[in-house]
Amino acid sequence: MTWVTGADGSPYGVTNLPYGVFRSNGGQPRIGVRIGSWVFDLAGAEAADLVLAAGALCRPTLNDFMALGRPQWTSVRQRITELLTDPAHRAAVEPLLVPLAEVELLLPFEVADYVDFYSSEHHASNVGQIFRPGQPPLLPNWKHLPIGYHGRAGTVVVSGTPVIRPTGQRASAEGPVTGPSVRLDIEAEVGFVVGVPSGLGDRVSVDDFADHVFGVVLVNDWSARDIQAWEYQPLGPFLGKSFATSVSAWVTPLDALADAFVPAPDQDPPVVDYLRDVPHLGLDLRLAVEWNGEQVSEPPFGTMYWTPAQQLAHLTVNGASLRTGDLYASGTVSGPDRSQVGSFLELTWGGAEPVKLGDETRTFLADGDTVIITATAPGPDGTTIALGEVTGTVRPAR
Amino acid sequence: MTWVTGADGSPYGVTNLPYGVFRSNGGQPRIGVRIGSWVFDLAGAEAADLVLAAGALCRPTLNDFMALGRPQWTSVRQRITELLTDPAHRAAVEPLLVPLAEVELLLPFEVADYVDFYSSEHHASNVGQIFRPGQPPLLPNWKHLPIGYHGRAGTVVVSGTPVIRPTGQRASAEGPVTGPSVRLDIEAEVGFVVGVPSGLGDRVSVDDFADHVFGVVLVNDWSARDIQAWEYQPLGPFLGKSFATSVSAWVTPLDALADAFVPAPDQDPPVVDYLRDVPHLGLDLRLAVEWNGEQVSEPPFGTMYWTPAQQLAHLTVNGASLRTGDLYASGTVSGPDRSQVGSFLELTWGGAEPVKLGDETRTFLADGDTVIITATAPGPDGTTIALGEVTGTVRPAR
Repeated sequence: MTWVTGADGSPYGVTNLPYGVFRSNGGQPRIGVRIGSWVFDLAGAEAADLVLAAGALCRPTLNDFMALGRPQWTSVRQRITELLTDPAHRAAVEPLLVPLAEVELLLPFEVADYVDFYSSEHHASNVGQIFRPGQPPLLPNWKHLPIGYHGRAGTVVVSGTPVIRPTGQRASAEGPVTGPSVRLDIEAEVGFVVGVPSGLGDRVSVDDFADHVFGVVLVNDWSARDIQAWEYQPLGPFLGKSFATSVSAWVTPLDALADAFVPAPDQDPPVVDYLRDVPHLGLDLRLAVEWNGEQVSEPPFGTMYWTPAQQLAHLTVNGASLRTGDLYASGTVSGPDRSQVGSFLELTWGGAEPVKLGDETRTFLADGDTVIITATAPGPDGTTIALGEVTGTVRPAR
Repeated sequence: MTWVTGADGSPYGVTNLPYGVFRSNGGQPRIGVRIGSWVFDLAGAEAADLVLAAGALCRPTLNDFMALGRPQWTSVRQRITELLTDPAHRAAVEPLLVPLAEVELLLPFEVADYVDFYSSEHHASNVGQIFRPGQPPLLPNWKHLPIGYHGRAGTVVVSGTPVIRPTGQRASAEGPVTGPSVRLDIEAEVGFVVGVPSGLGDRVSVDDFADHVFGVVLVNDWSARDIQAWEYQPLGPFLGKSFATSVSAWVTPLDALADAFVPAPDQDPPVVDYLRDVPHLGLDLRLAVEWNGEQVSEPPFGTMYWTPAQQLAHLTVNGASLRTGDLYASGTVSGPDRSQVGSFLELTWGGAEPVKLGDETRTFLADGDTVIITATAPGPDGTTIALGEVTGTVRPAR
């Protein structure tokens, strides 16, 4: 129970407490935590000695705080919970609550490297069937390692940032043409944010996931399918992805997701040693994709074949170091049914089966379209918590 | 003519002046410029008002200086030249010259995003012949756009950093096995360092290359061919590359390379508009690869099919923004002859034709091997300047 007005019973109650960075009245960026429809100004709280984090909460991004490590993450969260539940603190804390409606939310952390995986078996199979009909839907390596690649960290943007339709080359019967993408798509994903770094040459074990990963964001990895199809062989996606990747303004700490861990799908064939996680746990995050106000899909994150701990172990098995602010995303989350897919490529089966949105039909994104990805997760005692939404509106090509 | 002892006539004379970051006696990182076998301490020079750069030379990396832009880059270079040539300044400057042998050289800039291209027609053709014998060596997109992908910025290391042999999965007749890479290779490349950023949604024209790019580094993009071969489909190279990418400690400013621009190879078919650079210029950089003290190859950068201006225009045609510290590398530099290739994959033709090094033979890298990549370029008045070398020694897998 919190004394904050309206927060109890909301999906942003005191068991959630995601972190973000906000600005009010054009001021400096400040770290805050969301409670109900308020932002608790943690910079102000640390300045007033209400919470102690070695000054890390008085910085313009979460990076310094995320670098502190799990014991500090947990103790700061405990202290914030105490401040928001014990009425004795109300007088000191209430002046530090800012209405959410009055703040601008900023990119919550400085992104170091951005890696994107491809860990949904349903998504990979759908893409295989659409692009390589009549062939085995999964490539031979897919069940042996979590396929991934590096994306562009510098174009990771916060939820709400407009997405300008990218220009680029695509194939045509008359050879390549250059112009605005005509197959602009989304990818609904879940991203994991690294707090504690690792050294060059070190490997992070599947068992050490929670020592390194601070929390979770929702991700929309906007994708220009026509640009991607023409460019991607043999070195993978490049300009078809690098124009924008949106993340939620709120980072949900792993501590808030303790009740959301569930057994992940069995893996057959068995995986090699460094990928063997016992217990083998995914996260029961229930995503929803809204396209111009209509819900078109409910991707179930719990169906992902590769777990976040396996992804982290794979990412570092070659000795690649981690930095604070590294972001790795799951890849498109798609369940077994058409109503559970995380991309419009799948929803419209390569554009062959348009969907109806109100009075209009769509295959891919039109200028002016807005996509909102949300998610909920089980919280303690049968409650439900919400992850921060990720939204974006498509602007015409320049 | 410089008054600095021994610098005239050396490949690091006063027409070269590459920038780096050094540390002496365990002190703080300082920006310096190389002259002969000395480092001119620019942090000390700016602190003494001998050169003015808004404090950017008193920082621990080149990033703030690189962000200032070409007019400031040129005026600072002119001032440094004046200080090192006019004997009137000798008394003030000489105490700021530190013997190169007494300093530790550090990574000269903080890497924002790292992109790797694939722009040598000879290299791409060789790789195609080795991996897809009997098929057309180039894929259909190759002559229409500079193929590229994002690499891991966090594992870009300075020349001299040991390279730990990566562990990972590779294919075998019995299925995938995990272990130290058995086909560890180099890629001799040239990297371009972005100083001036661009906005999200903006495109950088081929004509604006010199407004954004500060200078050039040599790059060794270490590659584990066995890991890469198993993982790379369909999303491109990942762990086969992300364990280490070495760059030279010295960034050669574009201003030092004014005499090195030469016509690039003709492009047929003609390229699309945004890639049309007039004049179409490459750089006459002559690389050399030394393996355990023996020179094994001389890759000619002037033979590259895609120019650095075309690469930059392509990288941003979709509106992807540039940040100060972005690094984009050319891809492996290979000329038409076996004696001009930039990888051991090509030198040994996929490992089928071992090379003799002293009393030993090699296909790929053995533990303890050292590779040094050097390069020279034409300077003014028939002189030759050197780029900073990039070196690395292979350490056993952990």
